[in-house]
Amino acid sequence: MRWTLGELARLVEGELEGDPGVPIRGLASLERAGDGDLSFVTARRHVRAAERSQASAFLVPPDVAIPGRPVIRVAQPYGAVAALLRVFHPEPILAPGVHPTACISSMARVALDATVLAFAVVGDASVVESRAVLHPHVVVGDRCRVGEASILHAHVVLREDVVVGRRVVIHAGAVLGADGFGYVFDGSHHRKIPQVGRVVIEDDVEIGANVTIDRATFGETVVGHGTKIDNLVQIGHNTVVGTDTVIVAQTGIAGSCRIGSRVVLGGQVGLADHVTIGDGAQVGSQAGVHGEVAPGAAVWGSPAIPLPIARRVAVAMPRLPELLHTVRRLEKRVADLERRLGMWRGEAR
Amino acid sequence: MRWTLGELARLVEGELEGDPGVPIRGLASLERAGDGDLSFVTARRHVRAAERSQASAFLVPPDVAIPGRPVIRVAQPYGAVAALLRVFHPEPILAPGVHPTACISSMARVALDATVLAFAVVGDASVVESRAVLHPHVVVGDRCRVGEASILHAHVVLREDVVVGRRVVIHAGAVLGADGFGYVFDGSHHRKIPQVGRVVIEDDVEIGANVTIDRATFGETVVGHGTKIDNLVQIGHNTVVGTDTVIVAQTGIAGSCRIGSRVVLGGQVGLADHVTIGDGAQVGSQAGVHGEVAPGAAVWGSPAIPLPIARRVAVAMPRLPELLHTVRRLEKRVADLERRLGMWRGEAR
Amino acid sequence: MRWTLGELARLVEGELEGDPGVPIRGLASLERAGDGDLSFVTARRHVRAAERSQASAFLVPPDVAIPGRPVIRVAQPYGAVAALLRVFHPEPILAPGVHPTACISSMARVALDATVLAFAVVGDASVVESRAVLHPHVVVGDRCRVGEASILHAHVVLREDVVVGRRVVIHAGAVLGADGFGYVFDGSHHRKIPQVGRVVIEDDVEIGANVTIDRATFGETVVGHGTKIDNLVQIGHNTVVGTDTVIVAQTGIAGSCRIGSRVVLGGQVGLADHVTIGDGAQVGSQAGVHGEVAPGAAVWGSPAIPLPIARRVAVAMPRLPELLHTVRRLEKRVADLERRLGMWRGEAR
Repeated sequence: MRWTLGELARLVEGELEGDPGVPIRGLASLERAGDGDLSFVTARRHVRAAERSQASAFLVPPDVAIPGRPVIRVAQPYGAVAALLRVFHPEPILAPGVHPTACISSMARVALDATVLAFAVVGDASVVESRAVLHPHVVVGDRCRVGEASILHAHVVLREDVVVGRRVVIHAGAVLGADGFGYVFDGSHHRKIPQVGRVVIEDDVEIGANVTIDRATFGETVVGHGTKIDNLVQIGHNTVVGTDTVIVAQTGIAGSCRIGSRVVLGGQVGLADHVTIGDGAQVGSQAGVHGEVAPGAAVWGSPAIPLPIARRVAVAMPRLPELLHTVRRLEKRVADLERRLGMWRGEAR
Repeated sequence: MRWTLGELARLVEGELEGDPGVPIRGLASLERAGDGDLSFVTARRHVRAAERSQASAFLVPPDVAIPGRPVIRVAQPYGAVAALLRVFHPEPILAPGVHPTACISSMARVALDATVLAFAVVGDASVVESRAVLHPHVVVGDRCRVGEASILHAHVVLREDVVVGRRVVIHAGAVLGADGFGYVFDGSHHRKIPQVGRVVIEDDVEIGANVTIDRATFGETVVGHGTKIDNLVQIGHNTVVGTDTVIVAQTGIAGSCRIGSRVVLGGQVGLADHVTIGDGAQVGSQAGVHGEVAPGAAVWGSPAIPLPIARRVAVAMPRLPELLHTVRRLEKRVADLERRLGMWRGEAR
Repeated sequence: MRWTLGELARLVEGELEGDPGVPIRGLASLERAGDGDLSFVTARRHVRAAERSQASAFLVPPDVAIPGRPVIRVAQPYGAVAALLRVFHPEPILAPGVHPTACISSMARVALDATVLAFAVVGDASVVESRAVLHPHVVVGDRCRVGEASILHAHVVLREDVVVGRRVVIHAGAVLGADGFGYVFDGSHHRKIPQVGRVVIEDDVEIGANVTIDRATFGETVVGHGTKIDNLVQIGHNTVVGTDTVIVAQTGIAGSCRIGSRVVLGGQVGLADHVTIGDGAQVGSQAGVHGEVAPGAAVWGSPAIPLPIARRVAVAMPRLPELLHTVRRLEKRVADLERRLGMWRGEAR
């Protein structure tokens, strides 16, 4: 697939500076780009690297020029990259239909234009809607719904009563609807609390590889529309995550949390049971949160504290051993002064 | 399925206060309950919420009343909830038998009343006992045992020589018996130490989704009876976990650890190699443990220290930057005093 | 399989002290060894335990003797153990061939002496080389390569365009080539950046169970030859890991990192985006790294600081609450002194 720079400029509604006839065959980073590649500069500080790059042209923000090289000016170069990547690498089109090895319950309903690949399993009373794709070895339990145009990659497991909205992408190995972790200790053993609730994934959610999202005890565990979840994240039973929230890899969210919308949880964050995170809040990586984070707040550290304080603590921390030493010396000096002035009050600790 | 309040009171051996004929069709939390739902109050502080709830009746502890509303009094309301959940949501009964697509070694033995579902694989010399269930895509390697009434959810993998006791539940995607992480560095490369031991899971254990439990180098990696393991936990080779222990999500236990019985490891805890945790000890979430934790002790922090100290450290931490500042000022003030008294000993650091 | 001590001494090129005719039937740890077992001592401090052991003989380093017991002296006893484990437990030999239930694209090429087991799937234009093994339920996407003698355990998923070198071992449930976590926020929603790059795993790499390694945005995510990755590790898009590096369980590496060779990342380490780790550097468990770690450096803590400082901080930390108290008292004492000397400058904070 070959395009000209002029055609690409029109596609991204950018302002072309240079020869519209330059042939472009792909996108690449500044370092890897060669002749025929379009590359991109997202900030002024990358102009030097761009000048050294072998790329044939560049997507640049409005205020950047690369002397003597063709550029397409756009408000958001990385947004334009995202759009053009799909031009150069269109989603593979999978033929609709059910692979002969797939095992579909006679009580399930699979849309005629859905794609069900090898060894996929669909349980009783489940629905796979139009243009949905079940990759090889996907297991959809009983009474599930996989919404329009959603893609479940290889080995995804939906246990019973899991509802997946439209245009959802679930990466390989993710498990939705396993039992929540709930027990009553009877004095000698932990007795299981049956977990009979559901999992609801709203539209346009993306869920990473080997993620686990547990079903509710009763009621629902919910991930709101547009939320993006990275690999190996754990979401406990009864937790409700809002819309357009971002959860980075290996973060663990315990049970019955309320996470707002447009929240960002960094990598390896831990949220205790019943935590509330307000809309737009940001939690730094490896933070440990108990209690509540206010809307729009930023916190960091374990346990988490407001980000500006956490940053100053992080800077101060390496000086703690020296500080202990300094204070010990200060105590002696003050004791000396006190002795001098006849104020001595006994052994300083 | 419909019950009356009187019938449910008898089932949980509770004391009914109100009309025994009230029809109950399900259980729900205070917020979600509607007409026909039984809800529950676990502590006095939830009475207000109960008064606002639309539930038809409540399970309450002995010392709680909800004026004008029918209640069942029981010693442990949440225990009663656990019992009644199974009344309203009985475990689905799976027909025994081997699905035609399952691939069972001719040298394996599967009990007649076990259930083996689509695409499950059972290796040579393995045994699947009475009433055990292998969900779709479960892989049981050679020389394994799956004990009576144990349930392996979709995509669980047992490598060779893994022994699973009775009434064990293993959630989807868990991997038992992968090679332990052991190498000898020969000066230029890491040479693999063959991992030829086993994994032994005792009775009544529950193992979360996408958990990994590695086989021993020699000998056995063991999880003791009644222990409950949450999602995405890692247990290294040769580690022995005691009985009725609770391990919360994303905790990592390195090799050759000894974890006692009735221990609680919070979420995202890390245990280094050769750690010993005594019976009944508690490790707070995100703690990092080296060495030893005494029986009954509680620790927290990374590295972990006794919980009461860790709590005070957590409270003190945000004041560290200010403390540095205060001490710097104190040094100046003491130097001033010393100068005044002719005791000056040179530049304070 | 039975060997004599003399035969084993020759196999490991060790120096035998004792009867070469002692029959040996296996290897075991000092505690578990019985009659007929060869055990091993890796350090002088284990000699006592060896004396109490029931083992018939011991592998020992040059400077260790166990009075009255047969020993084989070798430079590196644990290396000898690794070698002998394969003697007593040879790798099972799997018959070459494709299982009748496997689903191989007509456009794929599988070597005649490769082994493809039940329900494995191999996509279009993919290659499975000589002596490679695909265990049950492995899914190899389109345009992949599985190199000579590599082993993919049950349920491993390679998405499209993943290249696996020779003698690589990938443990059960690992997912290679899921989309990297990349979005552009358009002011209201996160728009997906298509992830069209590849994953390249070089020769002799080992990858743990349920690990996730994401494909690059463009270009490649790379794991260098001889690198060993433990269970549940996450490696983000575009990251390049060098050779002979060790990454312990549950470590998370974000996108576009550069990890050197012979690096050690402890368990549950977190690396932010664009982190650089120099050759031979060591990162302690649970550390959180931003920015850069110099070659050969050792760091620890979250955020990570040089190891010697981090150790002193860890020791000092529990004394922080007392330190606050001491400084508060010091302030009062200094204020008293100042008052005495007529230097009082107002209320001490």
